[in-house]
Amino acid sequence: MERTVISELPGMVGKSAKIAGWVDVRRDHGKLIFLDIRDRSGIVQVVVIPKAAEALEVAKTLREQWVVEIEGAVQARPENMRTPGALGGFEILVEKVTVLAKAQELPFDMSADLNLDTLLDYRPLTLRRTREQAIFKVQSEILRAYRDFLIGEGFTEFQAPKFVGDDAEGGGNVFRVEYFYDRHAYLATSPQLYKQIMVGIFERVFATGNVFRAEKHATTRHLNEYTSIDAEFGFIQDHRDIMAMENKLLSHIVAHLRERCAAEFALMNAEIPTVAEQIPSMKLREAQALISKETGVDCTNEPDLEPEHERWLCTYAREKLGSDFIFITHYPVGKRPFYTMEDTEDKGFTKSFDLLFRGVEITTGGQRVHDYDMLIEKMKAKNLAPENFSFYLQAFKYGIPPHGGWGMGLERLTQKMLGVDNVKEATLFPRDINRIDVRLAQ
Amino acid sequence: MERTVISELPGMVGKSAKIAGWVDVRRDHGKLIFLDIRDRSGIVQVVVIPKAAEALEVAKTLREQWVVEIEGAVQARPENMRTPGALGGFEILVEKVTVLAKAQELPFDMSADLNLDTLLDYRPLTLRRTREQAIFKVQSEILRAYRDFLIGEGFTEFQAPKFVGDDAEGGGNVFRVEYFYDRHAYLATSPQLYKQIMVGIFERVFATGNVFRAEKHATTRHLNEYTSIDAEFGFIQDHRDIMAMENKLLSHIVAHLRERCAAEFALMNAEIPTVAEQIPSMKLREAQALISKETGVDCTNEPDLEPEHERWLCTYAREKLGSDFIFITHYPVGKRPFYTMEDTEDKGFTKSFDLLFRGVEITTGGQRVHDYDMLIEKMKAKNLAPENFSFYLQAFKYGIPPHGGWGMGLERLTQKMLGVDNVKEATLFPRDINRIDVRLAQ
Repeated sequence: MERTVISELPGMVGKSAKIAGWVDVRRDHGKLIFLDIRDRSGIVQVVVIPKAAEALEVAKTLREQWVVEIEGAVQARPENMRTPGALGGFEILVEKVTVLAKAQELPFDMSADLNLDTLLDYRPLTLRRTREQAIFKVQSEILRAYRDFLIGEGFTEFQAPKFVGDDAEGGGNVFRVEYFYDRHAYLATSPQLYKQIMVGIFERVFATGNVFRAEKHATTRHLNEYTSIDAEFGFIQDHRDIMAMENKLLSHIVAHLRERCAAEFALMNAEIPTVAEQIPSMKLREAQALISKETGVDCTNEPDLEPEHERWLCTYAREKLGSDFIFITHYPVGKRPFYTMEDTEDKGFTKSFDLLFRGVEITTGGQRVHDYDMLIEKMKAKNLAPENFSFYLQAFKYGIPPHGGWGMGLERLTQKMLGVDNVKEATLFPRDINRIDVRLAQ
Repeated sequence: MERTVISELPGMVGKSAKIAGWVDVRRDHGKLIFLDIRDRSGIVQVVVIPKAAEALEVAKTLREQWVVEIEGAVQARPENMRTPGALGGFEILVEKVTVLAKAQELPFDMSADLNLDTLLDYRPLTLRRTREQAIFKVQSEILRAYRDFLIGEGFTEFQAPKFVGDDAEGGGNVFRVEYFYDRHAYLATSPQLYKQIMVGIFERVFATGNVFRAEKHATTRHLNEYTSIDAEFGFIQDHRDIMAMENKLLSHIVAHLRERCAAEFALMNAEIPTVAEQIPSMKLREAQALISKETGVDCTNEPDLEPEHERWLCTYAREKLGSDFIFITHYPVGKRPFYTMEDTEDKGFTKSFDLLFRGVEITTGGQRVHDYDMLIEKMKAKNLAPENFSFYLQAFKYGIPPHGGWGMGLERLTQKMLGVDNVKEATLFPRDINRIDVRLAQ
């Protein structure tokens, strides 16, 4: 008999079926054994009754996470026995059980509220929980929606290299790799310089992939390796074209999640956000003036927003402006990288933005400098040596249109979408100062 | 006026339009100037005539790769002036030219046959050539088709970490990174162990991303950093289920390329391959016996195929079996990693395969060991310490179904699809022993 995936069982009532999957829960009622079987498409209950003597003998040996094949008759469950969900009204009356793989006794109760260390120490096991599956199902669907939208807008995907020859942006938070000929390479902290080069090739480009930050953070929102989802495009007027494109992108992602992940959001008790036709926007100084006025704490001389200010602005945006998202623009020149375009009508401030969502920054973006001479000047102003950037500078030497883009962290976006406490819970295999799957320092 | 992308001009004959892009070619006929303008969607000719005096003055200053906006009237070209291609029958009679960015004089003739070093030394410029654009357009479409097919088959995408704690497979060709606390991390040579873990979560998974090989190769087919497109899935009978899935995948990719990249293949003078309903397959020993018999050179005692044997087999498959692809199965246990399943009916040989295409191996795959005790045994047989794999081993301790998968190099696949000589030409920013954008050793 061919295997049927569990989600297709409702169409097979009255017929025989063979399913395969993991024992998610096992309830032994003595004469009867109930099993919840999980495969990639869902979970269904199967019942083993005494009449199926051989199957019952096998079923008695089964434990959680054993991998089995089950054959039997698909039937509707009695009205009063139905549970919620698409598969709650069906079950299989088992005729045959075959063990494909055994599992050792589990180290803890899988349904318990596990602490972060346990969650991560036992990742190959804990990821099998419905909650963790929901998080990473949503993550994969965010990425899918991200790519689909951009391809529809004429963007071309490209592969950004991770090995780079230099700590190009001079940030210092760069991992060093032993390369060939006693030379070192570095790991890219972002695909920024490459996506600008690629604007010269395809005009509209995006890249998704790992980036590496050698920062000694130990917060709930930082990782030393994460998935950066980046885009960049040319022939813009200014940063507002970038913000408008990201606005449309977020609307698309949210619509996609609403269509495909409603069950996962329900399970996580999380609300799918709404995205306004035009996400509200204010300049950093306007935001700071507002915070100072409303909270009585003067922050108008700060070059950036403190985490508590980001949280305050998100609450404000939600309560007063009816939006889960808010753009903050015009960060000072000193706080932004050399390639950031200054606003000539607001000297000292840049055509850049952060997008805040549910208390944190989820995107940094803006218009970039496209003029070769201006770019050289900006590098020098930041004490960077243009000769270290000669490869990148070719793009500008040979003509690049006005352009800009954004970078977003996929794990943080997933975290905030689902209301998860720590970004590590939204990262399959998080790397931080203490952990590369195994703990480095106890 | 709103910008129109060039590909939409055929629908605008008789109307005014504004386009924006790069000057691809400039032909100065004294009184008349012809420009080929390139944007993300195509190339179109524009004509500047003396009547448009101001525009002509600007047009005279233009050089290749300058970035411009052009306004004018869209018209059909006279029958006898039409050139091939969708846009060859149209032109714009220019009314206004605006310069968005200048370019310095180019270091070489862009239409020349450039050598590999020049191609790579000037990547931000040379990638703008129609030939290079075609290569990376095709690459992006291969990846898109790859993901679309697998999502359609119930696969879930996941993000594999690049930092790993150990040279897990013991191959030795691993780059070392300075991590925290004076500890080292390593760069993953493949997502293999993680995708096996993920079979336990989503049953069918794929990952696309960079992998790193510290191999001192200097061939036309190796890179030190490349894009690995991997998949893995459970509940299989054996390696033939993996081969069948890959067969369907390749059919899908090729159909997608036929639909979307016919122009790019024509430009590259490359043939889109055909994929048989069932790609021919033979065991390694059968292949070696055949080669030995046909060429007179005995290779029956070799543990693997030499490059010239791979080429020979591909020619054979094409000429005698009518296929661009051929699977070779049953490599000896000693030549395959510890996680490879041995064929109990053919002791000493594995349920693994290589897929050969146009002279080279483009995929390695097979069934993996899923039994915990057997896996420990296999590690020990390869002198690997199971305690170094305790994280990975959790997946097997807690139940994994029979499974397998494949890994493929996106750049090599692109190279062979398009008949490009060197894999570096199919890599945007290739990293090798001599080069990380800049040359390391002259």
